[in-house]
Amino acid sequence: MLVVKVGGGRGIGYDMVCVDLAALHAMGRPCLLVHGGSHETNMLATALGHPPRFVTSASGYESRYTDRATLEIFQMAYCGKVNKGIVERLQSLGVPAVGLAGLDGRLLSGPRKATLTIVEQGKKKVLRDDHTGKITSVNTELIRILYDAGYMLAVCPPAISDDHIAVNVDGDRAAARIAEALGVDELIILSNVPGLLRNPVDESTLVDKIATENLDDYFDYAKGRMKKKLMAVKEALAGGVKRVILGDARVAQPIQRALAGRGTVIGAATDH
Amino acid sequence: MLVVKVGGGRGIGYDMVCVDLAALHAMGRPCLLVHGGSHETNMLATALGHPPRFVTSASGYESRYTDRATLEIFQMAYCGKVNKGIVERLQSLGVPAVGLAGLDGRLLSGPRKATLTIVEQGKKKVLRDDHTGKITSVNTELIRILYDAGYMLAVCPPAISDDHIAVNVDGDRAAARIAEALGVDELIILSNVPGLLRNPVDESTLVDKIATENLDDYFDYAKGRMKKKLMAVKEALAGGVKRVILGDARVAQPIQRALAGRGTVIGAATDH
Repeated sequence: MLVVKVGGGRGIGYDMVCVDLAALHAMGRPCLLVHGGSHETNMLATALGHPPRFVTSASGYESRYTDRATLEIFQMAYCGKVNKGIVERLQSLGVPAVGLAGLDGRLLSGPRKATLTIVEQGKKKVLRDDHTGKITSVNTELIRILYDAGYMLAVCPPAISDDHIAVNVDGDRAAARIAEALGVDELIILSNVPGLLRNPVDESTLVDKIATENLDDYFDYAKGRMKKKLMAVKEALAGGVKRVILGDARVAQPIQRALAGRGTVIGAATDH
Repeated sequence: MLVVKVGGGRGIGYDMVCVDLAALHAMGRPCLLVHGGSHETNMLATALGHPPRFVTSASGYESRYTDRATLEIFQMAYCGKVNKGIVERLQSLGVPAVGLAGLDGRLLSGPRKATLTIVEQGKKKVLRDDHTGKITSVNTELIRILYDAGYMLAVCPPAISDDHIAVNVDGDRAAARIAEALGVDELIILSNVPGLLRNPVDESTLVDKIATENLDDYFDYAKGRMKKKLMAVKEALAGGVKRVILGDARVAQPIQRALAGRGTVIGAATDH
C-alpha cells in the first residue's frame, strides 16, 4: 500500500490528486489518502466571524489555535466539505472511496495537549482550552478490514484524544504515523510547493535528494509549514518508512510524478 | 440489530440518545443510528448568507431546495458538525462509533431528481439544479463488515446518486431503507414531538397505536415533516419491518422508552 498526503493549502485542487488515485487504483496499486483542509477552514472561520489564529510554539513550530468553536468549524470544513467532496470525486472516477476522520473508530488517537506555550511579540504566553493532540496509536485493524473489502480510505483530522475529546492533529504527522503503523515503504506528501526549497520564494532552488542521515541539516531551510513536514518525514523514516517524497500537488499526475522521483526525495543514501 | 433514526430539528440534543445507545450497546443490543441535521444546516446556511429554502412539492411534501451551495453547507453541518459530534460523544461513552455519510462506499445510492416541481402561492413551478435523490440501494456489505468488527455506525445523508453526485435524501426514508435492507424487525424514529398527534399543537392528542392496514387513514393528521415520516413508516412496513415506533427524542432513555411502546407504535394488528 502507498500512503499519500495532500495538503489543504491555498491553490490546491483535489481533482488531479483524485484522477491520479483512480489511475493507481485501476493499475492495482492500493493507496490510502490523508488530506488537509486548512484553507477551507480559514475561509469558513472568517465567514462565520471566528477568524483563524495561528500561533508559534516556544520551539518554533506554527500551529492553529483550536478552541472548541474552531474545532467545530474545523470539523465542518475537513470532515464535511473537503472529505465528502473528495469521496464524491473518487466515486465519480470509479473508486469505492470511504471517508473517515481520525476520531471514527479511534482511527487516530493519542494524548491531548490542552495548553499551548506560544511566543508572541517575543514574549512567552500560555493558551488554554486548545483542542490539539498528538497521535500515538493508529487503528490499523479498521484500515485493514476496509482495505480488504476493496475500499479506498480518505482520512483527515481530527483525531480523538485518550480522554475522548476530538483534537486537531497535524495532517503530515498523521500520514507519517499511518505509514509507519501500516509498515509501508513509501510515503508521498503533496502540497502547494514543489518540495523543499533552499529559498522558499524561488522554486528553482528545489532540493532533489536528501540522505536520511543528513536530514537534520535541512531544517534550517524549512520555514512555516515546511518545518512540520520535515518533522513528519523524520518521524516516518525513524518509524521504518524507506522513502518519503515531498511533491507538488498542483500538477497533473502528482502522485505518479512523485513516485518517479520528482520533488524532494528523502531516504537511504543507497538510493543515490 | 435495531435501527434508530434521530431527527435534526430544533430542540433535539443528541446527549440522551447517545447515552441510551451506549446503554443498549452495553446490554449487547446492537444499534445502527441514522441522524439528521436540519436545524444546524439552517443556522449555518443563514450565517453564511445562503438561507434555507423549503418548498412544497406538487404532491404536498415539504423539502429543502438543495442547490450545489446548499449541498456543501448541508455536508458541513451533517457530516462535519453533527456526525462527528455524535461519534465523539459515543466514544466518550465507551462505544466504538464510526460515522459515515450515505455517499461513503455508496452506502446509500439511487437516482437523482435534478428537477423539482413545486407549488408556490398556488402556482406550479419547476426548480432546476436540485441535488436531491431517492435511495434504491443500500450497501449492507459495508454495514456488516463494520458491525462484525464491533463498530456502531452513525449514518447521515447525503447519499450518492447513480451518476455519482452527492444528493440530499430524506433521513427517515433513509432509515426505513436501511432497516428494510438489513431485515430488522424494529425501527425507531425519534424527533422533537412525542409521536403522531391528532392535533399537532396538542401533545395530549398522541395516537398510541396504528395497525398497519389503517395507516393510510392517519396521513390526514400528519403536517409538514410528519407527512414524510409516515411515508417512511409505510415504506419500512412494506419492506418487511414488523414494528415502527415514532418516539420523543427530547426525553431520558428515548430509545428504551420507544421500545417499551411509548410514542406511536405502528405495526401488525396482532400487537393490539
